[in-house]
Amino acid sequence: MKLQHATWQEVERYLERASGIIIPIGSTEQHGPNGLLGTDAICPESVAWELGERHDILVGPTQSLGMAQHHLAFPGSISLRPSTLIAVLRDTVTSLARHGFTHVFFLNGHGGNIATVNAAFAEIYSERSLRSDGQPSNALQLTLSNWFAGPRVRELAQSLYGDAEGGHATASEVSLSWFARPEAVKDVTMSPRIAPSGSAQCDADEFRRRFPDGRMGSDPSLSRIEHGERFQAAAVEDTWDAYRAFLGQSQ
Amino acid sequence: MKLQHATWQEVERYLERASGIIIPIGSTEQHGPNGLLGTDAICPESVAWELGERHDILVGPTQSLGMAQHHLAFPGSISLRPSTLIAVLRDTVTSLARHGFTHVFFLNGHGGNIATVNAAFAEIYSERSLRSDGQPSNALQLTLSNWFAGPRVRELAQSLYGDAEGGHATASEVSLSWFARPEAVKDVTMSPRIAPSGSAQCDADEFRRRFPDGRMGSDPSLSRIEHGERFQAAAVEDTWDAYRAFLGQSQ
Amino acid sequence: MKLQHATWQEVERYLERASGIIIPIGSTEQHGPNGLLGTDAICPESVAWELGERHDILVGPTQSLGMAQHHLAFPGSISLRPSTLIAVLRDTVTSLARHGFTHVFFLNGHGGNIATVNAAFAEIYSERSLRSDGQPSNALQLTLSNWFAGPRVRELAQSLYGDAEGGHATASEVSLSWFARPEAVKDVTMSPRIAPSGSAQCDADEFRRRFPDGRMGSDPSLSRIEHGERFQAAAVEDTWDAYRAFLGQSQ
Amino acid sequence: MKLQHATWQEVERYLERASGIIIPIGSTEQHGPNGLLGTDAICPESVAWELGERHDILVGPTQSLGMAQHHLAFPGSISLRPSTLIAVLRDTVTSLARHGFTHVFFLNGHGGNIATVNAAFAEIYSERSLRSDGQPSNALQLTLSNWFAGPRVRELAQSLYGDAEGGHATASEVSLSWFARPEAVKDVTMSPRIAPSGSAQCDADEFRRRFPDGRMGSDPSLSRIEHGERFQAAAVEDTWDAYRAFLGQSQ
Amino acid sequence: MKLQHATWQEVERYLERASGIIIPIGSTEQHGPNGLLGTDAICPESVAWELGERHDILVGPTQSLGMAQHHLAFPGSISLRPSTLIAVLRDTVTSLARHGFTHVFFLNGHGGNIATVNAAFAEIYSERSLRSDGQPSNALQLTLSNWFAGPRVRELAQSLYGDAEGGHATASEVSLSWFARPEAVKDVTMSPRIAPSGSAQCDADEFRRRFPDGRMGSDPSLSRIEHGERFQAAAVEDTWDAYRAFLGQSQ
Amino acid sequence: MKLQHATWQEVERYLERASGIIIPIGSTEQHGPNGLLGTDAICPESVAWELGERHDILVGPTQSLGMAQHHLAFPGSISLRPSTLIAVLRDTVTSLARHGFTHVFFLNGHGGNIATVNAAFAEIYSERSLRSDGQPSNALQLTLSNWFAGPRVRELAQSLYGDAEGGHATASEVSLSWFARPEAVKDVTMSPRIAPSGSAQCDADEFRRRFPDGRMGSDPSLSRIEHGERFQAAAVEDTWDAYRAFLGQSQ
Repeated sequence: MKLQHATWQEVERYLERASGIIIPIGSTEQHGPNGLLGTDAICPESVAWELGERHDILVGPTQSLGMAQHHLAFPGSISLRPSTLIAVLRDTVTSLARHGFTHVFFLNGHGGNIATVNAAFAEIYSERSLRSDGQPSNALQLTLSNWFAGPRVRELAQSLYGDAEGGHATASEVSLSWFARPEAVKDVTMSPRIAPSGSAQCDADEFRRRFPDGRMGSDPSLSRIEHGERFQAAAVEDTWDAYRAFLGQSQ
Repeated sequence: MKLQHATWQEVERYLERASGIIIPIGSTEQHGPNGLLGTDAICPESVAWELGERHDILVGPTQSLGMAQHHLAFPGSISLRPSTLIAVLRDTVTSLARHGFTHVFFLNGHGGNIATVNAAFAEIYSERSLRSDGQPSNALQLTLSNWFAGPRVRELAQSLYGDAEGGHATASEVSLSWFARPEAVKDVTMSPRIAPSGSAQCDADEFRRRFPDGRMGSDPSLSRIEHGERFQAAAVEDTWDAYRAFLGQSQ
Repeated sequence: MKLQHATWQEVERYLERASGIIIPIGSTEQHGPNGLLGTDAICPESVAWELGERHDILVGPTQSLGMAQHHLAFPGSISLRPSTLIAVLRDTVTSLARHGFTHVFFLNGHGGNIATVNAAFAEIYSERSLRSDGQPSNALQLTLSNWFAGPRVRELAQSLYGDAEGGHATASEVSLSWFARPEAVKDVTMSPRIAPSGSAQCDADEFRRRFPDGRMGSDPSLSRIEHGERFQAAAVEDTWDAYRAFLGQSQ
Repeated sequence: MKLQHATWQEVERYLERASGIIIPIGSTEQHGPNGLLGTDAICPESVAWELGERHDILVGPTQSLGMAQHHLAFPGSISLRPSTLIAVLRDTVTSLARHGFTHVFFLNGHGGNIATVNAAFAEIYSERSLRSDGQPSNALQLTLSNWFAGPRVRELAQSLYGDAEGGHATASEVSLSWFARPEAVKDVTMSPRIAPSGSAQCDADEFRRRFPDGRMGSDPSLSRIEHGERFQAAAVEDTWDAYRAFLGQSQ
Repeated sequence: MKLQHATWQEVERYLERASGIIIPIGSTEQHGPNGLLGTDAICPESVAWELGERHDILVGPTQSLGMAQHHLAFPGSISLRPSTLIAVLRDTVTSLARHGFTHVFFLNGHGGNIATVNAAFAEIYSERSLRSDGQPSNALQLTLSNWFAGPRVRELAQSLYGDAEGGHATASEVSLSWFARPEAVKDVTMSPRIAPSGSAQCDADEFRRRFPDGRMGSDPSLSRIEHGERFQAAAVEDTWDAYRAFLGQSQ
Repeated sequence: MKLQHATWQEVERYLERASGIIIPIGSTEQHGPNGLLGTDAICPESVAWELGERHDILVGPTQSLGMAQHHLAFPGSISLRPSTLIAVLRDTVTSLARHGFTHVFFLNGHGGNIATVNAAFAEIYSERSLRSDGQPSNALQLTLSNWFAGPRVRELAQSLYGDAEGGHATASEVSLSWFARPEAVKDVTMSPRIAPSGSAQCDADEFRRRFPDGRMGSDPSLSRIEHGERFQAAAVEDTWDAYRAFLGQSQ
């Protein structure tokens, strides 16, 4: 069930039978010559929506902006500072906790978000841990899962692309985004075929010097809509495993 | 053109012919017994996408979370504090300004956002105005336009619903959200038919006491998909007028 | 009763018979060639003091600094960022709530404050609404009233000045400030007689380009001390209506 | 010259002949059984206004709210957190620096402000010192002067009250506030005559336990309007010395 | 060279021959029944000091407080919120960048710091990437290296302890801290011998429920001072490799 | 007992017999031609450790970074903004209060910290004083003591150095740091012998103009290790007096 398409009474009834929710989180940032600026949001959203349909899991609104400072030298990229993203996640989780959600599962599409999202979790937990009033805090479990890092997805990417999968603007994420948005497929020739590799730990000007067309180590000209369908299927299964394991954690 | 579906090179080329962008901004909050939690984001998004298609205007990612603290006593509502939303808008605008956008037009679907968005504009301008280095700041124009407040939309709502239009979970916004998401139409009987009226200037517990099912002064059982289509058409025209007037402002 | 002139025991006794307070809020910013930098603080203060005397209402210290970033290209203007003003109002209201005040009525003299003050109210309410401890929050009502926007004041300005009233450094506010501070009357010739009109939604450098002597659409050479006396009388009546309506709101 | 009573053109002309400004800063907090809640703002304001008149010094708007957390258990007290007051002073000074003021002299009436105001100065200087762009920062000098701590004032208080002067709600400040606001004189019997002494380094509940009627070590029943006149004269001379020494500091 | 033991002239001369610096960063948190609260700071400090001596690398002051919210239910643990630690690292790096340091290498002793430190790097880079003034930013490279995660250290831990190494209060870190602080060795019997395993992604109360004596999956009764000496040697070599690779990165 | 060398169980047992703790706080900043960058942290740490040993007082980790913005024009200096240091101290005290510590005694080595540390105390107390829930806050006492300002230390400095003691990079602190770190003694000729005097209330560039080699009014070529031993002894006695007086304050 999509939260955006539900009424509050439908959410109220959902909370009688469940206490978990999935929030897709991505980024709006360049993805090379044929990748969409919205790739990192579109991918986890498509996985979450499919998973939500199949297993009656509530899926919240997609957080389309992430921490993308290193991509800002490419037009169209939008970045939240870590401190801003932490505040957004804190308010989101606090809102959900008020309603009785105890397990908030962020399904992530952007490697650059991982550190900040985990710092946000620590910020939220700190608010509870730094209290000295002796009150037990109510249960709250937070986790981050990357749709692109599950075993089935990793295996599929390896089998389809090998080393040409790369690290940013990967062949797999471009395929999945095209499957989710077939109207936005681009046909672009890559040069060089496989982009240079390296570290993204730098500021935006330096990132563009290192990675002139935005790709990192990938050849997304290999991407295909039909691959995307298979990636979605694999990611739904990987994520379902992760979600069930997460719900199984008691608090 | 949707930014999320563009490559960075497509945005680069857009910036050679234009310097404006539309960002839909809404909220995720209860909209009464038959309104969707995503209503306030879905409505401006659908207007912006249609307008963008017709007139070659770039439309950025929808900001689905807004300032909705007064709705938090209804399950599913998610609110950003004003200080958080200000930070989000500051980072969004700063990112866009780096790329050369000079006119950022926020198309809003939620009355509760208006004060905070205008405060965010003032925060962004303050950063420039409080500098004493004698450097002229580069051009930047920001505006907020409410899809529901243009003359054609107002007139249509009056002609269709009269006083039953109301102030929150209005018949018009429910109609437009249904037109945009026909799969999510709900059939619910309202009681009382027209909800109580009053001020939303209070906290969440008090809001729910004042407005038990979430509606304010409205009868959204009058909503129809076909009304939604007419509201979209009216809003696209109203917004096109507003956007052109905005671009006409020099700086 | 002026809070600044009371002892804490006098406030304690006031709280036995009342729970409302008026806080004048203004700005320190240019008001054209014959308007005082303190106009926006002096005007609501003079109205609040008179009202407080007549009806035994406690009047707190005037907040003389407001959100005035667009005026910073004119010497003497001082601006708080929206985030700063939000913090000031949050601490002010929290202090008053601790003492048992339940209705805090801000009487405003500056249009540029409106968005930020309303965002501050939302920030204060958010603190209460984002709690999930199940505790009911104590009653707290906040409102903003603009002395210059009440029906009697609007009518008087129209009858005295018509279109020459303008939007900033208006003839009415200059008159009222002179009535309150007759020692500070200035005799200045205006050129052009009526200042240009336009939007103040911009940064300081751009504002000065649009409005070279600081006025917006006004001819304050029409201002007179005796007009000011009439504006004060009208504003006291308008504000008394607004204050009683505000107290009448239950929570 | 009072900034609040000046036009921007008058400030512009002032800046051609001077670059210093005095900002009175106080607090709104209980001052015992016969002291005004506004004492700490009224006193430095009256000194600054007199000094400004005599020596053509611009006097900015009084900062009436200070850091008064320890007084919050007494009705009427309003406190800004240190972080809030730091932001207020940062924005105030940044605004003034934009106009070309190079020497900002805060005339203080509240001991509890001293640490926070000095921390604010350090915060403002940090912004300049933490830049690594090799740009020399423009001149800016900040200082805090306490009207009650100059040699003439100290001597007068000793001669009039000896040990009964005390540490808070002192006989001298009550005298000066009465001289400045004769309409607000209170006639109250003190019990005990001299209040208990101790440290104010604690929270509000503890402060009230230590100092039940709000006074610290003082007997303000000794206060007289005519003493206040002498205190004002002494403070004007002390402050004039301090201000000239401050202007003499080069940068 | 230890920065704390150098004069500013010695640092000035160092900057003529080098531009890198190592900052040890740890935490102050429980480390089970025989581990020191300072373990996570002591370990990287001892490695950094030895490495600095051998290869003429400047070593800055140890950041002894880290992000340790999950340990706060055990007496003596002190935690900085992520937002606080981000501010500390931002100010530290900005100070160093002003002096001309271009490569800041944080040598970390606490897994719980990793996300926050990487978020801090992104916050620092964001400040540069979100500028739109067209100025190229000066070179700055930041990295985090975990003393406990290098290949030689991992291999040694495996060979000495196998699975009893564990995840928190590990046998290896206790050994190294004892080698560095032999006066603080504790002789404690563990029960159970190997502590339970699980996730530390939770708040403090929940962490203590999961891990009653603070250890996670480890048997630190296997720790020995002589092991610590070998861990230091291995970590110095691992870190030297990492530091040279880091300096080799151009910007 | 050093907290860093204790286990959590040892701290737990300490809390059964005591509720006070000493936190050394210093700075990392230039101390002239022969003073160590770590002087301000090394000195209070050495005093606290000695005092802790003698009287069974727990000594927490040394806060090595302080507010040192004015020293940033000298290589090696690192400064925290006041707002950052306030956050660090707030989190530190909140962590300790959770464990049951009621008296936190900061032993300071840097005059530049005094205002900010006191502002931090006020920020911490504000959190308690601004609550209106009627709950009594638990006991918490905070104090700052400067090792260099006690009567025995002042007298010794006067007897050894007279006016050559100075205000920064003093002969006494250099002596004490050398006693604590004899391996770091420097032999440097001073020119002029006694450094210029003046105010440190300015930014970093201006500070370096005023004080070219970093010293303020001192001749630390008079410093000797054996003096340092005497300063430590004097400071331990002074601090012991201050600590006992602090514990004697009830709350």
